[in-house]
Amino acid sequence: MPLWVIAHTPTTFSNEEKQELAKAITTLYTKVQIPVFYVNVQFLELAPPNVYVGGDIPDKYAGITIHHIARAFDSDAAKKKFLDKVDSILTPRLKPKNMNWEYFIQQAPGDTWRMNGIVPPPTGSELEKEWLRRNKPVGEGNL
Amino acid sequence: MPLWVIAHTPTTFSNEEKQELAKAITTLYTKVQIPVFYVNVQFLELAPPNVYVGGDIPDKYAGITIHHIARAFDSDAAKKKFLDKVDSILTPRLKPKNMNWEYFIQQAPGDTWRMNGIVPPPTGSELEKEWLRRNKPVGEGNL
Amino acid sequence: MPLWVIAHTPTTFSNEEKQELAKAITTLYTKVQIPVFYVNVQFLELAPPNVYVGGDIPDKYAGITIHHIARAFDSDAAKKKFLDKVDSILTPRLKPKNMNWEYFIQQAPGDTWRMNGIVPPPTGSELEKEWLRRNKPVGEGNL
Repeated sequence: MPLWVIAHTPTTFSNEEKQELAKAITTLYTKVQIPVFYVNVQFLELAPPNVYVGGDIPDKYAGITIHHIARAFDSDAAKKKFLDKVDSILTPRLKPKNMNWEYFIQQAPGDTWRMNGIVPPPTGSELEKEWLRRNKPVGEGNL
Repeated sequence: MPLWVIAHTPTTFSNEEKQELAKAITTLYTKVQIPVFYVNVQFLELAPPNVYVGGDIPDKYAGITIHHIARAFDSDAAKKKFLDKVDSILTPRLKPKNMNWEYFIQQAPGDTWRMNGIVPPPTGSELEKEWLRRNKPVGEGNL
Repeated sequence: MPLWVIAHTPTTFSNEEKQELAKAITTLYTKVQIPVFYVNVQFLELAPPNVYVGGDIPDKYAGITIHHIARAFDSDAAKKKFLDKVDSILTPRLKPKNMNWEYFIQQAPGDTWRMNGIVPPPTGSELEKEWLRRNKPVGEGNL
């Protein structure tokens, strides 16, 4: 977590564009000191006739669900700032393709999240910094 | 948004049935004056051995998640009315196939939704009517 | 419902391992007297370059979303007990593969869930026991 699921048609992204977009999304989170291995990006390729917008099959398409858990926004200003950052990633990459795209954030409480069977540490905790430094999930016993 | 994700096995729908079902779902929403391009329908084909019901691989299958954002139901009566309309679409199309299907609605708040980098207008607003008339997302500056 | 969506890379699971894992997940729920046909398990295969963790393409990967509806946990203890059971399924099967995995539970209210167009009975009700005995959804009129 976070997890971005990017449903798209085959002509929307090249393989190189997928890699580059995944890196940009990852940087968005690591800038705020989230362990890099938290960031999951999945591309879900839907070929015709498997995706419809307004009842028609689009040529290019990106329907993005951003799953956030354990991190609600502190304020409307913080939320807007984050969404503006998301747009700063998506708009320059998608608008030149002359296509439509949309996204929304699906939030879930963090108390049912586990990595490798381990409960991730609280946001901003010393243990989370340790996960970031070690670049992997570590149990308290492994410190 | 709305977004229907229809996970299914390869033998469940023909290409023509997918197109026809997507149109019926779209009409369900446009009847209540939602801009037609809001309606996303995705078919997610899962071939054996990638889907299980009760531990067994089904022949025909449709597991449907309906994502709604920004529009909660006003009352239990409104909710039942909507679900009955959903059934009026699904049941006549799926019951003759002698198969099982299920769906549920996953709701999310609307305040993190953006289309083409633009915040969609409030439900029932003049700007939303403009989006409906223009049949595309338009920023306030583009009116 | 419940619905497990297991996104994974092609080298993560063999077909036999998928079947065996789906059976283990199903048993987790049927032990607590949930009708077996409630349990849906979907494997979503994402081949490179379609999945990224920390901006890199993983070899083995399992990103699992567990959708629960209509059944919240009564207490923190009940939640921990359930998650520990989930780990007792996943950890012995995934840890030997020398890979990372994660999961979280996405909960939704149960009041928009329908199977074959029928509202599922309340948890623990006589009608639910009938569904379990009959091993299929039955309307009240069909009893």
